[in-house]
Amino acid sequence: MRVGILGAGQLGRMLALAAWPLGLQPRFYDPVPGGCAAALGPQTVAAWDDLDAVERFCAACDVVTYEFENVPLATVRHAAAFVPLFPAAQALEAAQDRLAEKALFQGLGIGTAPFAAIDGPADFDSALEAVGLPAILKSRRLGYDGKGQVAIRSGVDLERAWQRLGQVPAILEGVVPFERELSLIAVRGGHGDTVFYPLVENQHRDGLLHLSRPIVDAALQRHAQDYAVRLLDRLDHIGVLTIEWFVHGGELLGNELAPRVHNSGHWTIEGAATSQFENHLRAICGLPLGATATTGHSAMVNLISAVPRREALLALPWVHLHDYGKEPRSGRKVGHVTLCTPDEAHAEVALANVLELLA
Amino acid sequence: MRVGILGAGQLGRMLALAAWPLGLQPRFYDPVPGGCAAALGPQTVAAWDDLDAVERFCAACDVVTYEFENVPLATVRHAAAFVPLFPAAQALEAAQDRLAEKALFQGLGIGTAPFAAIDGPADFDSALEAVGLPAILKSRRLGYDGKGQVAIRSGVDLERAWQRLGQVPAILEGVVPFERELSLIAVRGGHGDTVFYPLVENQHRDGLLHLSRPIVDAALQRHAQDYAVRLLDRLDHIGVLTIEWFVHGGELLGNELAPRVHNSGHWTIEGAATSQFENHLRAICGLPLGATATTGHSAMVNLISAVPRREALLALPWVHLHDYGKEPRSGRKVGHVTLCTPDEAHAEVALANVLELLA
Repeated sequence: MRVGILGAGQLGRMLALAAWPLGLQPRFYDPVPGGCAAALGPQTVAAWDDLDAVERFCAACDVVTYEFENVPLATVRHAAAFVPLFPAAQALEAAQDRLAEKALFQGLGIGTAPFAAIDGPADFDSALEAVGLPAILKSRRLGYDGKGQVAIRSGVDLERAWQRLGQVPAILEGVVPFERELSLIAVRGGHGDTVFYPLVENQHRDGLLHLSRPIVDAALQRHAQDYAVRLLDRLDHIGVLTIEWFVHGGELLGNELAPRVHNSGHWTIEGAATSQFENHLRAICGLPLGATATTGHSAMVNLISAVPRREALLALPWVHLHDYGKEPRSGRKVGHVTLCTPDEAHAEVALANVLELLA
Repeated sequence: MRVGILGAGQLGRMLALAAWPLGLQPRFYDPVPGGCAAALGPQTVAAWDDLDAVERFCAACDVVTYEFENVPLATVRHAAAFVPLFPAAQALEAAQDRLAEKALFQGLGIGTAPFAAIDGPADFDSALEAVGLPAILKSRRLGYDGKGQVAIRSGVDLERAWQRLGQVPAILEGVVPFERELSLIAVRGGHGDTVFYPLVENQHRDGLLHLSRPIVDAALQRHAQDYAVRLLDRLDHIGVLTIEWFVHGGELLGNELAPRVHNSGHWTIEGAATSQFENHLRAICGLPLGATATTGHSAMVNLISAVPRREALLALPWVHLHDYGKEPRSGRKVGHVTLCTPDEAHAEVALANVLELLA
C-alpha cells in the first residue's frame, strides 16, 4: 500500500520509519527539495499550487495524509478528489485559523482563554475590553512554534503589534496564568475506533517545545478524552489529532489543535506499545489501532539548532537518539532524545544527565 | 557517517531502520538487484568478485559491515584494505567453514557435538567410528537455514549423502539429543566494551527458525557469556557476534557462529532498551554501546512464505509487524512478528493468538 505524505520534514521521516515495517510504502510531496524524509522514500518536488503535480502524485498513492498543517487547503481539497485523504480537510481548516479553532472549542463546550477577532484598528478597543491585559496578538493563519505572535501590555503595544504582524486578520488572546501546558494525542481509526495516549506535560523555551513528559492524572485524562471525543466526532476525524491544553485552576482550556502527529508525541516511539506514527498510519490505512500503554517512564527533549556530539549523548544511559538529518541552523529542530526507563528514579537521573549535557 | 552494508536483505533493511535515527546513512552492495533493504538506502548492484566495484563502494563509505555471512572472504578482505570494516575477516572465515568453527570452539575449551572432517570416501569409516550414529553430514561451506545438510542413519546413507552434497568438503556431526537450542547475541564495541542480550530459546520448523523467546537462567547465561568473551577476544571482534548453542545434560555445546545481527535477536527491536541492530551500528562506528535490558516479555515468530492478512494480524493485541517487503515464495522468510508484553500471562495469550492465526 502506497502512502503519500504532504510535507517531507521530520514528521514525514518518522512516519516513514514506522511505515516500512508495516509493509507500507511512503512517498513525499514537498516544494522544498531534499526534505529530510526523502532519505526514506521518493519525494516529488513541486509547488503546493501546482495542482497537476498534486494530481499525478495522488494517482501514485493508495492513501494520502499530511505532516504539516500549513499545506494550503486548496491543495488538500484537490488531492482528496483523487485519492482517500485523511485527516479530512475540515480539521486542517480549523487548525489553520486560530479564530475558527477557538470557535470550534467553544461550540463543543470546551473552555478557552478569552479571545476576540481583530480585523482592523476599529476592533482594538472592544477586543482589549473583552480580553483584558496582558494579552497576545496572534495572526489567525500560518502560525507555529511561536511565530506570528506578539505580547501586548498596553493599547499602544497593540497598535505596534498589528503593524508588525503585517495588518493581517488576527486574534487577541488573553494571557492565562496557567499552571501547566498539556497535550493529548488522540487517534481515531477508519472504523470510528479511538485510542488515546496519556496526557503529556510540555515545557517550552523561546517559543519552541523543549521537554515533554507523559503524566498520570486520571481526572484530567478523563476530561481531556471526553473533550477529544467531541472534537473527533465533530470533525469526523481519521488519524492522529493533537490537542494542546492549558491547565488553569485545575480545569482544561483548549489552546490549539494539530490534525497530525505531533512533537509532544515523539516519546511514544519507545515509550508506548504502539507509536503515534504507527497508529496514524494504521488509522489512515483502515487497519486496527494498536495499544497505547506506556512501556516505562518516558521523557523527550528536543535538540535545537544542532545535534550534540553523538559519542557524549550515546554514552548516557537510556538515551534514544533521533537525528533528523537536517543541517544545523539556529532555532531549528534538528532532532530529539527520548529516555524510557523502567522506574521513576532512573527517569529523573537520566533526564538530569541529558539536560546537563545540552546545557 | 556513511555506513556501507554488504548484502541488501532484511537484516540490512533493519540495520537501515536503526541507522537513520542515529544520524547514520546506510548504503548497500548486493549482486541481486532490488534487495529489500534498497528501499531504505541506495544499493550498488555488482558481483561479489567485481573488486573495482567493491573499491568504489568502499570509497563512498566511512565504515563497512556485512549482513550476510556468505560474502566471499576475498571481497571482505579487499574492502578492508580501503575502509574500516567490522567485524574483521577472521570471524567470517570461521563462520563460513563448519570445521574451522568447531575447531575454534574446541580450541577455546567450548564443548561441541562430536564431529569429524570428511574430504572423501577414505574418511567415511573413521568418521563414523569417531562420531557414531545417528549423525548429519554437512557441507563445510555455504550452509544456512538447514541447507547443505543430510541426516545419516547408516554407512549407506553416508555414501548417498556425500554424492548428494556434490562431493564437497564436509563434516560429519553426531546428533546430540539436546534439550534446548539457545542463542546468545553478544556485542563488542570499538573500545573493547561488551554487552550481552539474554539467552534466547529457539524453535525450528523445516530447518527454519520459527520461534525465539528470551529466557532467564542465570547459570546458563553466565556460562554462555564466559564462552562468548573467549570468542570475542580471540576474534578481536567488533560488532554483533551470535553464538548458537545446544543444551545437553544442562551443559552448553557450541553449534554455530554468525558474525552479524541474527534472526534470533529480532525481538530486541521492541523487547530491549537498545536493539541488536542499533548496538551493531554503535559498535562498528566506535560509539558507546546501549543497554540490553529487556523492556517486557518478548517472543518473535517468523513469517514464512507469505505475510498473513495485515488486518487480522494487527487486530491481535501486542503485535509488532515487521514486513520485509519481499515477494511471497514458499519457504522464504518474508517478515516476523514480535510480541512484547508487560507480564508473562499476557505473553502466553498473545503468543497463542498469533500462532493460531498463522496455523
